[in-house]
Amino acid sequence: MSQFIGRVNVALFGLGRAGLIHFENLIASYRVALKWIIEEDVEKANNVVQKYMLNDTRVIHGNEINLVLQDNSIDAVIICTPTWTHESIIRASIKAGKHVFCEKPIGKSIASTQSCYEEAQKNNKVLLCAFNRRFDPGVRQVQQKSRNGVVGQIQHIKTISRDAPLPPLSFLKLSGGIFHDCAVHDIDVICWIMGDTPTTVYTQGHAFNPDIADMDDIDTVAITMKFASGAIGTIDLSRFAAYGYDQRLEVFGNKGMVQNHNSKFCDMSSHGTGGESLHPILPSFKERYAQAYQQELEHFLDTVTALLPSELTDRAVSI
Amino acid sequence: MSQFIGRVNVALFGLGRAGLIHFENLIASYRVALKWIIEEDVEKANNVVQKYMLNDTRVIHGNEINLVLQDNSIDAVIICTPTWTHESIIRASIKAGKHVFCEKPIGKSIASTQSCYEEAQKNNKVLLCAFNRRFDPGVRQVQQKSRNGVVGQIQHIKTISRDAPLPPLSFLKLSGGIFHDCAVHDIDVICWIMGDTPTTVYTQGHAFNPDIADMDDIDTVAITMKFASGAIGTIDLSRFAAYGYDQRLEVFGNKGMVQNHNSKFCDMSSHGTGGESLHPILPSFKERYAQAYQQELEHFLDTVTALLPSELTDRAVSI
Amino acid sequence: MSQFIGRVNVALFGLGRAGLIHFENLIASYRVALKWIIEEDVEKANNVVQKYMLNDTRVIHGNEINLVLQDNSIDAVIICTPTWTHESIIRASIKAGKHVFCEKPIGKSIASTQSCYEEAQKNNKVLLCAFNRRFDPGVRQVQQKSRNGVVGQIQHIKTISRDAPLPPLSFLKLSGGIFHDCAVHDIDVICWIMGDTPTTVYTQGHAFNPDIADMDDIDTVAITMKFASGAIGTIDLSRFAAYGYDQRLEVFGNKGMVQNHNSKFCDMSSHGTGGESLHPILPSFKERYAQAYQQELEHFLDTVTALLPSELTDRAVSI
Amino acid sequence: MSQFIGRVNVALFGLGRAGLIHFENLIASYRVALKWIIEEDVEKANNVVQKYMLNDTRVIHGNEINLVLQDNSIDAVIICTPTWTHESIIRASIKAGKHVFCEKPIGKSIASTQSCYEEAQKNNKVLLCAFNRRFDPGVRQVQQKSRNGVVGQIQHIKTISRDAPLPPLSFLKLSGGIFHDCAVHDIDVICWIMGDTPTTVYTQGHAFNPDIADMDDIDTVAITMKFASGAIGTIDLSRFAAYGYDQRLEVFGNKGMVQNHNSKFCDMSSHGTGGESLHPILPSFKERYAQAYQQELEHFLDTVTALLPSELTDRAVSI
Repeated sequence: MSQFIGRVNVALFGLGRAGLIHFENLIASYRVALKWIIEEDVEKANNVVQKYMLNDTRVIHGNEINLVLQDNSIDAVIICTPTWTHESIIRASIKAGKHVFCEKPIGKSIASTQSCYEEAQKNNKVLLCAFNRRFDPGVRQVQQKSRNGVVGQIQHIKTISRDAPLPPLSFLKLSGGIFHDCAVHDIDVICWIMGDTPTTVYTQGHAFNPDIADMDDIDTVAITMKFASGAIGTIDLSRFAAYGYDQRLEVFGNKGMVQNHNSKFCDMSSHGTGGESLHPILPSFKERYAQAYQQELEHFLDTVTALLPSELTDRAVSI
Repeated sequence: MSQFIGRVNVALFGLGRAGLIHFENLIASYRVALKWIIEEDVEKANNVVQKYMLNDTRVIHGNEINLVLQDNSIDAVIICTPTWTHESIIRASIKAGKHVFCEKPIGKSIASTQSCYEEAQKNNKVLLCAFNRRFDPGVRQVQQKSRNGVVGQIQHIKTISRDAPLPPLSFLKLSGGIFHDCAVHDIDVICWIMGDTPTTVYTQGHAFNPDIADMDDIDTVAITMKFASGAIGTIDLSRFAAYGYDQRLEVFGNKGMVQNHNSKFCDMSSHGTGGESLHPILPSFKERYAQAYQQELEHFLDTVTALLPSELTDRAVSI
Repeated sequence: MSQFIGRVNVALFGLGRAGLIHFENLIASYRVALKWIIEEDVEKANNVVQKYMLNDTRVIHGNEINLVLQDNSIDAVIICTPTWTHESIIRASIKAGKHVFCEKPIGKSIASTQSCYEEAQKNNKVLLCAFNRRFDPGVRQVQQKSRNGVVGQIQHIKTISRDAPLPPLSFLKLSGGIFHDCAVHDIDVICWIMGDTPTTVYTQGHAFNPDIADMDDIDTVAITMKFASGAIGTIDLSRFAAYGYDQRLEVFGNKGMVQNHNSKFCDMSSHGTGGESLHPILPSFKERYAQAYQQELEHFLDTVTALLPSELTDRAVSI
Repeated sequence: MSQFIGRVNVALFGLGRAGLIHFENLIASYRVALKWIIEEDVEKANNVVQKYMLNDTRVIHGNEINLVLQDNSIDAVIICTPTWTHESIIRASIKAGKHVFCEKPIGKSIASTQSCYEEAQKNNKVLLCAFNRRFDPGVRQVQQKSRNGVVGQIQHIKTISRDAPLPPLSFLKLSGGIFHDCAVHDIDVICWIMGDTPTTVYTQGHAFNPDIADMDDIDTVAITMKFASGAIGTIDLSRFAAYGYDQRLEVFGNKGMVQNHNSKFCDMSSHGTGGESLHPILPSFKERYAQAYQQELEHFLDTVTALLPSELTDRAVSI
């Protein structure tokens, strides 16, 4: 198989919350040439392209997707569109010979997701479903130390994921609910560290926010999972923490405990008559997982440029 | 009612783990004269009395309890005997006109417990069931701040209580099980802060330690409670944490969060090529709740010497 | 030499700031019988004795000191009187056969101090000059780790000692100045850890507080010491820190660093929109060094009851 | 004056330690087109250009500098060459109409430095002397809070700057000594926060490392500065800390204290029988001041594209 030479030519689908994060990482990376942006709001995307002085990036509407698929110079696509569009873009892209980096989820069902991975494998293409937390330095350290036996036999894995700021109601209505939108990240991290899926799951929740209650969604959740080993996994979710984006992880075993704490923009503190005030924790997922998003993209570029198709599916599943 | 004058004359029932803690606090307090120690192992107790050079403290066996009950100079009794003996000592002591400080539990049932409190109230006697954590400075701060609205509407209360060191198997066999022995403290703290009891309770657990499995007990527990307000309470228990006596508390609400963290003997740290090593957290309940035990006794002495019987039951229940 | 039996009978000279701290530790210790309190303000002392219900403690004025010296039952004296009285009470007490625990300083000069220690040694009496910080658990850990080579070759030792609250002007006027009153503790700790005294000393200071300037004293000091090994010692003093009693210690060497941080009443934190607020550090020397004062007294009682006079001078100097 | 349009065309002088840091930030910024790299080791620079696939960047040797100066498309130069070359490149660049970003120092004397700034101002060019710490988020917060009165009257400013890893001896020999190479950063930060320069300076130091002693340099330094306001500044320097790149800042005043602590790659901790181990602090200046270097470059680009020459000198001096 030939060596990958030059920059990876990329098309970016969607310039929403996640899309803009990937956009900034793409244009800052010397390994990438961003050739196409596919976005419903063409004007908004053109303004972005102009602001960033990207002379070689072309913006098109979603109904012109064939221009991208037929562009043989494009090596890979990054998919950040609404979730219901993922599967069809993935299938079309793989069919057109592109590697795929896609925000979760791949498909609407386990079967369709599995089928997409099979399609990618058959075509020697990377299909990476992006779970940013797996690339967070702290989460990764906790996973490695847990796997390396630092805590001994795992007895309890715990995550706390409290969002900030409160997402707009318009977003919440389309989010698919707190389990679909938020819990999946925590479930993924716990199962990744356990290397297993639970046998029993229990959950309890409540909507304290009346607007969220009106959507038939909830904003506060506790999940308890039991694994075959006896280990317990617990997840603490909230749609809003007043003090910032609260993301914690703890693995407890018979030999000890490893924890990932919250991050701050700087470790500054003020001491006055009321005590010591620490700098606030990071305000939102964008800042908290900035490094994770970068590492995630680098990982995708590594797999694409290393041309190792046989490992792709496995990597996507078991990283 | 006459003013209380002089020291509170006390009889101490039991010189086991808890009894020895209270013993040390009793003899260090200028407010108390320890007159009697009632202990099955009379020789052990006499050795303690001799070591501490207590000329005015008399040791007797449990079958001589009438000597204490008939001693009109005795104002109060401290009960630290095995749990199945509590109720009868309480009833006899109240009947004999003594105020009572008793380690949990008061009785074996809610009805018998309630009846003890009624008896105490009828006789104008203090009956204090000792829940040491309520007197821990950090727990108390969290409770006060939560009640004062610092976190806003309470959405989630969490405790972590992991014991250290692993209690001896002989103790575990008689402990009544992890729920009876450990969880009661966490349940008490959560309900105290909530000012309510849960409407739904779920629990999941496992015995990783084969000796504990052999006793039909478990060593690792997760409890989820749901309150009428919608608030969730979660408890994380373990019989053993390798890194010390892990006791944490967190109250999360729509305006913020308050936490009580672990305590250390000193806040010393070492920095080497491997990073920063902090001094270990306190090794067991004795060190962790040393202040709480002292404050608990002071509170009992306050209520006894203030002679305010009408508040006694309420205080015992709702402090 | 006969075995020490029973409680140590003690006379306490002075019930001021330090005297009251020692008083509370004395009456809480089962090893001690407090027989005499010698205090200029007899009424105040009698009120304390009455409040604490001490039937066996007699209060006398300083001009009746002979009653104490002639009381053969008295084993030891604790001296917390104004500094100019120390030496004469020490000499008289040793002559009368009492062991001596004395707040710093022993004498006004090195020669007179040395002579007091010689007198004590000649009479087989303990003479302990109390430097509370040597008994602080964190300071002690830092000293031991430094001596055990944890930091390698010591290159820099640093202390920060900022008082709180601001002492009353009446006290400051009699304090002997910030070097005499405060710096001695830091100098002692640094020389104790180094096991050496400096060859060069430089200091810089300023009075920001106009009242302190009026006394010809200063409130802010930086001291630099150079040791024969090349190690540098630096001391940062202030008469007042708005955020509490700030006491830090750091030893840096070629292999690493050990630190002793500030202590708090509890490790509680509140998280709101402004960030995380930690519980304030301890407010004054009384709380900060409560354990140190207790340990210091226990150490004195150990040396007194162990009857090991040959080690006394060395201990006082090189502990 | 016309509006700045498009990317800032830049020439980078020097691809050493600092040069490579700026290189990575330059090619990651959409605001910049890196046109020239001037480097003695042309082969090394060409390898870098090739690795990063920079088709539009031309590498030349220092003796071809005229190609850059005569390139009218070049807006700005970044100077990271050995210190003795700075002044002549600055003068030539300003004369050729380029804005200048230069690693410290500008010149070898105060007079020549001042003259360079005058030259820049006369030619309406930006001349920015890069002091990275001024752009560190934590340092900046401390400066702003100190200036905004959070600590009240400043009484003591302290920095700790301990390098890691130990720089190669080859570097140390050319570094100009620890004062010239290291202390300047701390002096700059303290004077920046004070808004003043000291009236008295004292320093004490030692060479523990025999190789450094052989160079007639020292590796451990304590500096004490006294300001006209009475405030004291102290600097603690070391060429090597075994536990990582130790950079701390503390400003103490009559109302409180602000601190900037060390940073870590992630806030992960492990708890075992020995206590809690925190993730190591960042290993070197490159990681510690990564954000500062980015912000510094952004600031330079802001001043260049905003075309505000009248503020340039002031900004350079008093930011």
